[in-house]
Amino acid sequence: MHDQLPTLTKFLKQLQQVPYLASKNLYRVAHHFLEMDAQRLEQFCAAMQEAHTGLKKCDVCCVWQEKDGSCNFCASSRRDSSLICVVETWYDLYAIEKTGGYQGVYHVLGGALSPLDGISPEDLSLNKLVNRLSSGCHELIFALNQTPEGEATSAYIARKINLAYPERNFKITCLSRGVPVGSSLESVDRVTVFKALAERRLF
Amino acid sequence: MHDQLPTLTKFLKQLQQVPYLASKNLYRVAHHFLEMDAQRLEQFCAAMQEAHTGLKKCDVCCVWQEKDGSCNFCASSRRDSSLICVVETWYDLYAIEKTGGYQGVYHVLGGALSPLDGISPEDLSLNKLVNRLSSGCHELIFALNQTPEGEATSAYIARKINLAYPERNFKITCLSRGVPVGSSLESVDRVTVFKALAERRLF
Repeated sequence: MHDQLPTLTKFLKQLQQVPYLASKNLYRVAHHFLEMDAQRLEQFCAAMQEAHTGLKKCDVCCVWQEKDGSCNFCASSRRDSSLICVVETWYDLYAIEKTGGYQGVYHVLGGALSPLDGISPEDLSLNKLVNRLSSGCHELIFALNQTPEGEATSAYIARKINLAYPERNFKITCLSRGVPVGSSLESVDRVTVFKALAERRLF
Repeated sequence: MHDQLPTLTKFLKQLQQVPYLASKNLYRVAHHFLEMDAQRLEQFCAAMQEAHTGLKKCDVCCVWQEKDGSCNFCASSRRDSSLICVVETWYDLYAIEKTGGYQGVYHVLGGALSPLDGISPEDLSLNKLVNRLSSGCHELIFALNQTPEGEATSAYIARKINLAYPERNFKITCLSRGVPVGSSLESVDRVTVFKALAERRLF
């Protein structure tokens, strides 16, 4: 269609590699950038490059931090460093932070095991997690996604930890699952209701 | 949440201005760019800047073209330049091209009239359209979106043309509307079925 516009084709090819841009939105997003002021486009690229060079992952918990600063979580004196919450990505972490009810630290895995997507244990920060457990941890919370990949990853980590610390003195817990707050049973899928029933708690 | 990461905040603010990135996808898209190779990020920015500087809109039909080339549509000898199809955006144009059944030229308005979004007649290439009609046109096809804005814009253009060419010798037509091919009546909304009935054609 736009074969005769090599510059456009090249740009669209680059955009196509950005996840979560459906093919319809692809053109709309391209449109946005093409119609932008040259100056605003400069600013966009500069901010992106700056974020790319100015941020690094914390050596301990793998959360993004300013390259010349210390980790917001690990370095905080108001957080309990012996309570560690394992999440898949740094944006899952924000979902926990938004609750306002968590005062521990985090460990960002960088994804979940997924052989089909080529994500193997080496691609995740598993060894870092296992190693940091030796320096004082009283509870490890699995807060991975409720997906087959997330559950398989939790199981894999638990096995790895049990091998590394056969006589461990910290708990491993995971998020509860069940009917979302504010929703009616009728609107919730069968499997969730089944789990909510099977994992019922004392009232 | 990420107030203490000014570099990240600045980048996310820039990304937020890109349309069609829902707040959930925002983080995922940011993640994609942060995890990219530095070299690939360079390439992305370069392609975007190149497209921004290397493309311009055709003076006649307002379709994107290479800055140092001629318009793929207006300059083509295989296209009937007296048959003009009016579309809202250049990506609507591709929807028509994909049919493979259109051999005329185009006119890209750059959107539709929308007082709520602050889009007034001056923001669209309406004068260009009215002017080009003086140099030989036998049919003008309105292919704007089937939205209130699209229909209002079609009506506005038609009135403007009737004023400019009180004794015009070209037809103004528009796309038919009705039940989409392949869908059952039951699955189509009420208004569409009403229109399909009201605008029925001879079998």
